[in-house]
Amino acid sequence: MTKLTHIDSKGQAHMVDVSGKALTARSATACASIKMRPETLEMIMTERHAKGDVLATARIAGIQAAKRTSDLIPLCHPLMLSKVSVEFEADPELPGMRVYATCKLAGQTGVEMEALTSVSVAALTLYDMCKAVDKHMVIGEIQVLEKRGGKSGDWSLGA
Amino acid sequence: MTKLTHIDSKGQAHMVDVSGKALTARSATACASIKMRPETLEMIMTERHAKGDVLATARIAGIQAAKRTSDLIPLCHPLMLSKVSVEFEADPELPGMRVYATCKLAGQTGVEMEALTSVSVAALTLYDMCKAVDKHMVIGEIQVLEKRGGKSGDWSLGA
Amino acid sequence: MTKLTHIDSKGQAHMVDVSGKALTARSATACASIKMRPETLEMIMTERHAKGDVLATARIAGIQAAKRTSDLIPLCHPLMLSKVSVEFEADPELPGMRVYATCKLAGQTGVEMEALTSVSVAALTLYDMCKAVDKHMVIGEIQVLEKRGGKSGDWSLGA
Amino acid sequence: MTKLTHIDSKGQAHMVDVSGKALTARSATACASIKMRPETLEMIMTERHAKGDVLATARIAGIQAAKRTSDLIPLCHPLMLSKVSVEFEADPELPGMRVYATCKLAGQTGVEMEALTSVSVAALTLYDMCKAVDKHMVIGEIQVLEKRGGKSGDWSLGA
Amino acid sequence: MTKLTHIDSKGQAHMVDVSGKALTARSATACASIKMRPETLEMIMTERHAKGDVLATARIAGIQAAKRTSDLIPLCHPLMLSKVSVEFEADPELPGMRVYATCKLAGQTGVEMEALTSVSVAALTLYDMCKAVDKHMVIGEIQVLEKRGGKSGDWSLGA
Amino acid sequence: MTKLTHIDSKGQAHMVDVSGKALTARSATACASIKMRPETLEMIMTERHAKGDVLATARIAGIQAAKRTSDLIPLCHPLMLSKVSVEFEADPELPGMRVYATCKLAGQTGVEMEALTSVSVAALTLYDMCKAVDKHMVIGEIQVLEKRGGKSGDWSLGA
Repeated sequence: MTKLTHIDSKGQAHMVDVSGKALTARSATACASIKMRPETLEMIMTERHAKGDVLATARIAGIQAAKRTSDLIPLCHPLMLSKVSVEFEADPELPGMRVYATCKLAGQTGVEMEALTSVSVAALTLYDMCKAVDKHMVIGEIQVLEKRGGKSGDWSLGA
Repeated sequence: MTKLTHIDSKGQAHMVDVSGKALTARSATACASIKMRPETLEMIMTERHAKGDVLATARIAGIQAAKRTSDLIPLCHPLMLSKVSVEFEADPELPGMRVYATCKLAGQTGVEMEALTSVSVAALTLYDMCKAVDKHMVIGEIQVLEKRGGKSGDWSLGA
Repeated sequence: MTKLTHIDSKGQAHMVDVSGKALTARSATACASIKMRPETLEMIMTERHAKGDVLATARIAGIQAAKRTSDLIPLCHPLMLSKVSVEFEADPELPGMRVYATCKLAGQTGVEMEALTSVSVAALTLYDMCKAVDKHMVIGEIQVLEKRGGKSGDWSLGA
Repeated sequence: MTKLTHIDSKGQAHMVDVSGKALTARSATACASIKMRPETLEMIMTERHAKGDVLATARIAGIQAAKRTSDLIPLCHPLMLSKVSVEFEADPELPGMRVYATCKLAGQTGVEMEALTSVSVAALTLYDMCKAVDKHMVIGEIQVLEKRGGKSGDWSLGA
Repeated sequence: MTKLTHIDSKGQAHMVDVSGKALTARSATACASIKMRPETLEMIMTERHAKGDVLATARIAGIQAAKRTSDLIPLCHPLMLSKVSVEFEADPELPGMRVYATCKLAGQTGVEMEALTSVSVAALTLYDMCKAVDKHMVIGEIQVLEKRGGKSGDWSLGA
Repeated sequence: MTKLTHIDSKGQAHMVDVSGKALTARSATACASIKMRPETLEMIMTERHAKGDVLATARIAGIQAAKRTSDLIPLCHPLMLSKVSVEFEADPELPGMRVYATCKLAGQTGVEMEALTSVSVAALTLYDMCKAVDKHMVIGEIQVLEKRGGKSGDWSLGA
């Protein structure tokens, strides 16, 4: 039967031993959405074309958060990320923004927590910058889209 | 017309001047959900009653994240939180867990970003602890439920 | 009956609400000892007189650790320390070094955890600097010597 | 005679006691320059108009660094900054960029270290982003331009 | 003659060069004790069986502290820990709790500082949670029990 | 044509992918100067000979800052530094102090940002310790002196 790996046989949390795992190239992509009023989305997009600081701020926050994952998520291993990128996409259907983050490294554990932390903090930063004009935003759909490398091999949502 | 307060008249990000604002008692409550397979929820709940480390780990992560909000969200002010609490509730309808965080302080800015950051990191920690048994979890519904204090007064979702 | 204040009525950890407590001047002094071989102590003291970097390094580590207490101890409140000092005293009887730290602030909670964290990290730093020459050091006697201010008033060990 | 305040009578570093100082409104402005080849400056300015991420990244780094000053500079007190702003100005005479940061708070100590740390890290971030195209950049002229508030009153460079 | 390796020939602190050292599997186990009144120990143990949050909180604090060792101890190298575990044992003879931490990695330096930092912070966290009911606790007996790997080979206390 | 590598084809900041780069031995040396009144320099040098805490404090700050570079400079990769050293040299001609830092590692990216961050924070710490006696200090001449290793090979200023 499957088991929660971060809990040992006595039911105690621990940072699992990955020292026996092979060092392989790994990457993960995660996404998040932030739902807002159409006027709020419009305001970000206008800012974007004219000046850029709104999305640039959220992107930097997401990149830095990826590097701090093991400091935020207690049982995550410290990792030497070799790449982090964060993308935004306006989605008028939502209406709102979609956030995507990709993390990469050669290591002994997967990097999906880094990608998930990155999109979460990028979305929270967008929220922070827009909260004065929109009190009803909702952050959601935070999930892993794709994982590559590691023992379990490649995986993608819906595949 | 309303404006993005974190962007100045030249379109540049800045940490807004709150030095003229009154120091008042403020609190905020936020929530998040993490959707999972019924078996995963069952596993957490069993762990919980027997041993407690799964939810305790996520709760501590959420409390510590609230304290680090200004380090994660670039334009947030450093704050002296006077209280943080994180609660979990199993929701078999979801199915999954619901996370609630309440932050409190006497200060010059609201604490909704602290509450939102807290539930986000608590949910990410649950995700981390369960990802070995469930690859399809989705974190969502991250939003503010209630705010008290400050110039704009009390506010609650749906009120 | 007395209760563990950091555990709520449901047995869950939380950062207790101090918003109703008065803002008063508070200070705390804590100590620690690090037992070592007489030759190791001699080596530190020689370094000290000649150059100073051994104790200076440990002192800085202790001062910085005091400022990071709420980041290290999950249920500690963030505090605005107004003073931190760290002192060392060679004790040939031990034999070893004694470390003392005093922290001060005007705030709503006591600062004994800050003083205790400070002496602990200062002692760990001494250990780190001497471990190449002494594998049997023991850090101990970490305790609060004196507390001033706050609702419970002044208190000192042995008084 | 004047004395190094961060060194006590025994010649030991300590975080000075500010608990007796009045809580007053304070601000400080600091600047830095980063000298580069004219082609490098041209490249940043082109990026700026078209897209904005170069200066936005350096600005965010400067804002976040101001908040982390007491974590970086060992004897600085933790402070609750109420405002941080970072500005850039292309100076074709240098040739290069000039960086300005203003910090503000109501507190017991000045904020010039926060402003100086902010411009330093903003300049280092510009350096990082341009180093692939220019190996001879030099960061300099890091100084305080103006201080307001506190016991010693208002002060400005050259006044 | 033996030398303090963290102090160079001029008596100055530095982070020693380990780049020539082989990358080998290393582990270390350290312990600490926290002496308390029998009633305090009883209270923790009762909490433990019923709910678990007291020890779980201290365990998480210890695991996170191990990951932050190089940030706390100035001359420690940043390390990629591959495993951290923290255990508690009630000792009615003390009376009090004993804390054990084991750290592991494949690297160029030993991990005893990580294990020592982990038990110290776990013990400080227990202290914090119990200080409202017991003002006379003492943390002590912080030492390395066992080291494996590296040039100097395996070592254990008392062997 | 050369390009700003930290900005992608859409003009967005990202942490560049270094996973394909070889892991080689790398080092970098950077310097900074801090100009002050002759009396201030005299005061530091007297302190130095007698007690050492002024330069020791700045040295520790510089070493710790090197380790935090990826946390401060948004697009820097996390690195496992294998050595950091910081040196000071009084320069009566300046008049003031010169600071030098050397960083080393086996990795996929250069360490010049670590060396530059180290000298900057060491100089800021000196500034902080002397600001009570000298309001006109200027930090400058922050530049890379020498780089070794990596694809582009050895490089030194003026060579």
